[in-house]
Amino acid sequence: MSIFADLLSNIFDRRYRFGLAREDDRTLSELTDDLVSASGDVTGQAVARQILDRYAKWDDAEKLDFFRHMALGMDLDPQAVRVALDAYEASPGKTSYRVFMAAAEPPRQELVRRLNQVPGATHLLVSMRSDLLRLGREDNALMALDLDLRHLFASWFNRGFLVLRPISWESPAHILEKIIAYEAVHAIDSWNELRRRLQPADRRCFAFFHPSMPDDPLIFVEVALTKGVPGSIQTLLAEGRSALAPEQADTAVFYSISNCQSGLAGISFGNSLIKQVAADLSAQLPGLKTFVTLSPIPGFVRWLGDQDLPDSTRDDTTLRQLAAYYLTRAKRDNGKPLDPVARFHLGNGAVVHALHAGADTSPKGRAQSEGVMVNYLYDLARVSQNHEKFASDGVIATSPDLRSLAQAGEARLKETAP
Amino acid sequence: MSIFADLLSNIFDRRYRFGLAREDDRTLSELTDDLVSASGDVTGQAVARQILDRYAKWDDAEKLDFFRHMALGMDLDPQAVRVALDAYEASPGKTSYRVFMAAAEPPRQELVRRLNQVPGATHLLVSMRSDLLRLGREDNALMALDLDLRHLFASWFNRGFLVLRPISWESPAHILEKIIAYEAVHAIDSWNELRRRLQPADRRCFAFFHPSMPDDPLIFVEVALTKGVPGSIQTLLAEGRSALAPEQADTAVFYSISNCQSGLAGISFGNSLIKQVAADLSAQLPGLKTFVTLSPIPGFVRWLGDQDLPDSTRDDTTLRQLAAYYLTRAKRDNGKPLDPVARFHLGNGAVVHALHAGADTSPKGRAQSEGVMVNYLYDLARVSQNHEKFASDGVIATSPDLRSLAQAGEARLKETAP
Amino acid sequence: MSIFADLLSNIFDRRYRFGLAREDDRTLSELTDDLVSASGDVTGQAVARQILDRYAKWDDAEKLDFFRHMALGMDLDPQAVRVALDAYEASPGKTSYRVFMAAAEPPRQELVRRLNQVPGATHLLVSMRSDLLRLGREDNALMALDLDLRHLFASWFNRGFLVLRPISWESPAHILEKIIAYEAVHAIDSWNELRRRLQPADRRCFAFFHPSMPDDPLIFVEVALTKGVPGSIQTLLAEGRSALAPEQADTAVFYSISNCQSGLAGISFGNSLIKQVAADLSAQLPGLKTFVTLSPIPGFVRWLGDQDLPDSTRDDTTLRQLAAYYLTRAKRDNGKPLDPVARFHLGNGAVVHALHAGADTSPKGRAQSEGVMVNYLYDLARVSQNHEKFASDGVIATSPDLRSLAQAGEARLKETAP
Amino acid sequence: MSIFADLLSNIFDRRYRFGLAREDDRTLSELTDDLVSASGDVTGQAVARQILDRYAKWDDAEKLDFFRHMALGMDLDPQAVRVALDAYEASPGKTSYRVFMAAAEPPRQELVRRLNQVPGATHLLVSMRSDLLRLGREDNALMALDLDLRHLFASWFNRGFLVLRPISWESPAHILEKIIAYEAVHAIDSWNELRRRLQPADRRCFAFFHPSMPDDPLIFVEVALTKGVPGSIQTLLAEGRSALAPEQADTAVFYSISNCQSGLAGISFGNSLIKQVAADLSAQLPGLKTFVTLSPIPGFVRWLGDQDLPDSTRDDTTLRQLAAYYLTRAKRDNGKPLDPVARFHLGNGAVVHALHAGADTSPKGRAQSEGVMVNYLYDLARVSQNHEKFASDGVIATSPDLRSLAQAGEARLKETAP
Repeated sequence: MSIFADLLSNIFDRRYRFGLAREDDRTLSELTDDLVSASGDVTGQAVARQILDRYAKWDDAEKLDFFRHMALGMDLDPQAVRVALDAYEASPGKTSYRVFMAAAEPPRQELVRRLNQVPGATHLLVSMRSDLLRLGREDNALMALDLDLRHLFASWFNRGFLVLRPISWESPAHILEKIIAYEAVHAIDSWNELRRRLQPADRRCFAFFHPSMPDDPLIFVEVALTKGVPGSIQTLLAEGRSALAPEQADTAVFYSISNCQSGLAGISFGNSLIKQVAADLSAQLPGLKTFVTLSPIPGFVRWLGDQDLPDSTRDDTTLRQLAAYYLTRAKRDNGKPLDPVARFHLGNGAVVHALHAGADTSPKGRAQSEGVMVNYLYDLARVSQNHEKFASDGVIATSPDLRSLAQAGEARLKETAP
Repeated sequence: MSIFADLLSNIFDRRYRFGLAREDDRTLSELTDDLVSASGDVTGQAVARQILDRYAKWDDAEKLDFFRHMALGMDLDPQAVRVALDAYEASPGKTSYRVFMAAAEPPRQELVRRLNQVPGATHLLVSMRSDLLRLGREDNALMALDLDLRHLFASWFNRGFLVLRPISWESPAHILEKIIAYEAVHAIDSWNELRRRLQPADRRCFAFFHPSMPDDPLIFVEVALTKGVPGSIQTLLAEGRSALAPEQADTAVFYSISNCQSGLAGISFGNSLIKQVAADLSAQLPGLKTFVTLSPIPGFVRWLGDQDLPDSTRDDTTLRQLAAYYLTRAKRDNGKPLDPVARFHLGNGAVVHALHAGADTSPKGRAQSEGVMVNYLYDLARVSQNHEKFASDGVIATSPDLRSLAQAGEARLKETAP
Repeated sequence: MSIFADLLSNIFDRRYRFGLAREDDRTLSELTDDLVSASGDVTGQAVARQILDRYAKWDDAEKLDFFRHMALGMDLDPQAVRVALDAYEASPGKTSYRVFMAAAEPPRQELVRRLNQVPGATHLLVSMRSDLLRLGREDNALMALDLDLRHLFASWFNRGFLVLRPISWESPAHILEKIIAYEAVHAIDSWNELRRRLQPADRRCFAFFHPSMPDDPLIFVEVALTKGVPGSIQTLLAEGRSALAPEQADTAVFYSISNCQSGLAGISFGNSLIKQVAADLSAQLPGLKTFVTLSPIPGFVRWLGDQDLPDSTRDDTTLRQLAAYYLTRAKRDNGKPLDPVARFHLGNGAVVHALHAGADTSPKGRAQSEGVMVNYLYDLARVSQNHEKFASDGVIATSPDLRSLAQAGEARLKETAP
Repeated sequence: MSIFADLLSNIFDRRYRFGLAREDDRTLSELTDDLVSASGDVTGQAVARQILDRYAKWDDAEKLDFFRHMALGMDLDPQAVRVALDAYEASPGKTSYRVFMAAAEPPRQELVRRLNQVPGATHLLVSMRSDLLRLGREDNALMALDLDLRHLFASWFNRGFLVLRPISWESPAHILEKIIAYEAVHAIDSWNELRRRLQPADRRCFAFFHPSMPDDPLIFVEVALTKGVPGSIQTLLAEGRSALAPEQADTAVFYSISNCQSGLAGISFGNSLIKQVAADLSAQLPGLKTFVTLSPIPGFVRWLGDQDLPDSTRDDTTLRQLAAYYLTRAKRDNGKPLDPVARFHLGNGAVVHALHAGADTSPKGRAQSEGVMVNYLYDLARVSQNHEKFASDGVIATSPDLRSLAQAGEARLKETAP
């Protein structure tokens, strides 16, 4: 079908571009002006396509020029905003509000919306923001432009527009190769390893997709169905293990969550993904009672390093105590946990449930957290109130065990302090 | 599949709502405040669902209260805008721009975006705007609120997000019954009549859909494949006619275009639809050389009535001459044609191609235009420049025949003027 | 997609037929000989297509000629069978068996298999058998030919090849119009009536399809989800009734089963259909505990007429008693029940469960059974042993109530006998 | 969806098997008797499932026992055939023919048809025949049994039931891994190599599927779109080559055809596949004018070895001359070409078109044919008559060039003969 669709659009493009060939020598700023001011989408789409085609061929310097044109040449006109605001305040209503809306939004937002009229443009625009984040981090004006892109994308990639799709060994290869590429937590190094993550009856994977980017997952989560809460990623992913019959599982373990689109940075999908997957799995497999993660503690070793502890403290028990302290009591200035993964799951309403030493014996696991991993528990009946308390008062929900461990960790820190 | 999906979401809802049941007694404005200020989507979705559930049960008076709350209670704060604008002007950059963006957008926009997080909400929000347009036409503040909805919908229903799907006798019945309901030009009075429009080999129908509303067409066009440009809608749609083999057709006739969603008023899809369908058909059937409409002239009789012409003038030739004059020379104050269908097609870059008397002998056809119909021609290689000239200078593209007819019409008007 | 596929095959046909155009003047028996003896499918498909094309244009007399050619001209050669049999008996093994197989099957079977090589031919062949049954009932040789078709179709329409698909108001219209046409038990007289059977949350419909006839259901069953076992078809199908939430249903009622293809007469699908649907529904809706029919008793009135009972006996109680007797004790010579619907469900392993007077007040219901209807109960855990006892010993499984009713019916018959 | 379907059938199985658990101790021959004599499919399916479940667990010796039971215990009864034949001859008609049909078919055919009633059984039965061919080659009675399986499979896998599906890099991974496994001509040694065969715009792959085995291709063909007829497989498949735009191609090259199911040996799909793919491609890409293979000559070196030629003859020109002679003039006793690939393509109506030395420099290519490869040309307008002449008179269609080469080859053979 997609071959056929290509054929169609090629034929049309050929005809259609023919009528526009003369305009090709417009400068970029002429093109953007033309696109923003186009009175309809008759010419709009063709102009948009030209801009996107040119963009695709640019090097970084040219891309930066384009971004600067958007940031500075298509910026707000404060004086126009002020005039429109005064008029609106004097006589609020439809007419004055329309003028204000037009003035209060920089024309670059309309530019991006019109670029998106071209079929397939959404993915290009996401890549464009990825370029912007890569090239413009240090430039205050470009980061203001980024706020516009983020604002538009947050609206376009609204949860209501996303589609949850299972990823399995029966999924298309061109999507699976993206799973291999984007897996950010426990690397997948071959198609055989991928098959081990997808094909056994006790493994699941789910991804969010946007309908305009059906070939590109936005985020995905890998799940293991187990009996009991697991405490080692190596055991969970061991080659040659025998699969559990799904009906015998009582626990679903979210052992890896990976974002796929750097151009969607700052737009959060993970919380919805976990909730939706937990709901779907629990409907399919009523035997599932427990939904947990098996998560890395990426900042633990770095934090440990800052504590000036003698090396001798690093037996398993001590590590678990210190990790408990780190996860639940080591805070940023704003009162949130230091650990980014902890912030994510606690922000979702999860509970810090259990800690395991020797749980990730890979080089990365040792380097990040001395091999310690943590389970965050998603209790669907309580995620909402956990979340609220965390969001409003910074309260971290923990299991009783965890609390004792953290207590012991605190004691340990004090006694070993120089 | 949808049964299964329902099942899932039911199960989840049951669990999930349980945890929230206590909050049900919040007032509406508490709920909207909570939704807008929710720090994440954990509670956001549940609150959004509550608002939508309540909305679904309200009568018009309650809906109006809700709209007024959005319009007045969630309006811009001009003073905040002014402060943010001053700060931005003083020191433009990411931080000041973020504050300005937040201030310059009334919180009701964020409310609508967050309502849309609930799966299936998009259609409800479109219906909400339909209610607003029905109830709030006379209220200046509500029409300002409408601008916000329209702004959001224009972004969400961007051309790049729409999907063109053929509608055929093999389409699902629940979609076909919407085609019957929404056909606005030549009414479909039974399933048999619908079958005659869809099933013959020389008939086509296409609709735009939004991925979040897969069961609801946004706009559709009905097409007849013919040999030569037709001049009568009754002949085109006659019962018992024999179908043409598609490969023998040289002309595609767009004989009916209907919008389906009153809640998307003002967001234009028709132009893209015609272009896309013409492109697809021409790729499928290379024998197609001509793309025309067979269109009503809805304002002709009303205009005629204003011209104080003696009744004797209404023979077929005269009617065509006067219709040619009406379509191409009778203008609004802004220089655009009086006739709304003419404005649409000329705005799309079409050419006024030919006029036919006795072409629509239905009561509606006689009442609107004394039975006269018009072909607008879409010449894909020239739509763009036609459109530009029409948009910038009001130039109406016509065939030579049409020009002669309009000339004769002008003479006729002068000679018969009292 | 189907438009595109058509296009392809048209183009190919045009090319391909070109190369064969000269052979068009072969007689029918030359064509059938050529097809049966073709050494490969290179020419085979083209010859097969010619035969099918000709068949489609024939009147009944020509069709009969064709059937007679198959029955008589492509019959067994008994002498060849005998020779092959002797050789096989003398020296059984691969070579002699191959010769025997070829001899023991009349060449018309191979003809039909080769006709089926043409894409889309399966449905034509089913229609061909429908013609044969209509035209050849009285002709012994043609009924022998029919055995060959039935033998092939039983193999092709093997249960393992059938696909169960739900039919809903979201199904394609061209399939739904077949549901309207084929409903044989309680007629569907409009699309609105169809919608009432399909759209409410407490209604279901399922059909078996063969992959080579995706647009033509083979058999379908209509299901109502209810609380308790219903005793009136009019109540069950009443306009304006309010739907039950599916999760609240405890009973699935199979209230109509219709075969769709007269060309598949004698090949039974109903038993598999009921079992599969019961299994699917019980997995989807664990609340369902009871699977019953609400069935007509088509032979009751005719049988009653043969009993010379005075008219006064026909109060509701008496009718139920007599119907119980009729269903469970009135037998054919072979010991099976007189009533064809009873034979079907008892043969499937169902139980005669309950009888209801005034249950079908339609003219057809009154004429067939004085308005009495019956529930057959499918107890999934016991269908197999019920079936076996019925098949081997003619034992009819009944509820205790039914037994009492039948007992009373027997007494009534004796006392009223003249 | 398949997870859900599994769920359903598991639940049903559990219930259903429960009712049958007691019967588990029947012997195999009791089970087969029960299945063949079952009066309906109520118990039939359960018995069939038991046999298949047992089969799946057997070792080769047990499988052989089962095959022998089918071959000997479920064989023809010649005396019954003879009696039925006499009766049919005495009084041909429906009744006598029915008796004959039953007698002339060994009960094992009905057994296999009934085994196939279990959903998913078709693939198991195909594997069963694969086992039979592996284990029973030397056993005359088992090879007679094989004729029954082949007879049934030829009917079930009739061309009219097969579905052509494109295989692409967007196909499901579990199907792609079968392409890797089954590629029999030019091995695919990694997923990267597979991607190179599928993803470029100038590569295509198509497979036939049977609807009851949607996850298992029956046969597939790999196609390269080229400009001109290629003469080297290494060049065609080179890493790093740049892809041709499909619209610029004038030639489609079938460079590899592989059968996937050893259990379908002797049932030919290749000819239909090539024809259908050629037709589809030519409809999609009207620029394609030439359809050729680039084929190995597997028997060339072996035949060369039998000719006692001095080594000095093996320059490129000589090799091509000798290969031309080998392909077109070296015959089996039955007059058909010695080379099996030549027999296949000539039997399909192809033309021996061109020969290339140094065309397959892989070890396998050198070993089989000293690196020589051949193009067979499919001229759609002439395949039918080529086929007929080849089938009836053994005429081999060749290009003029080929004829000259073969002539020279003949001369060379004579002059070098010792």
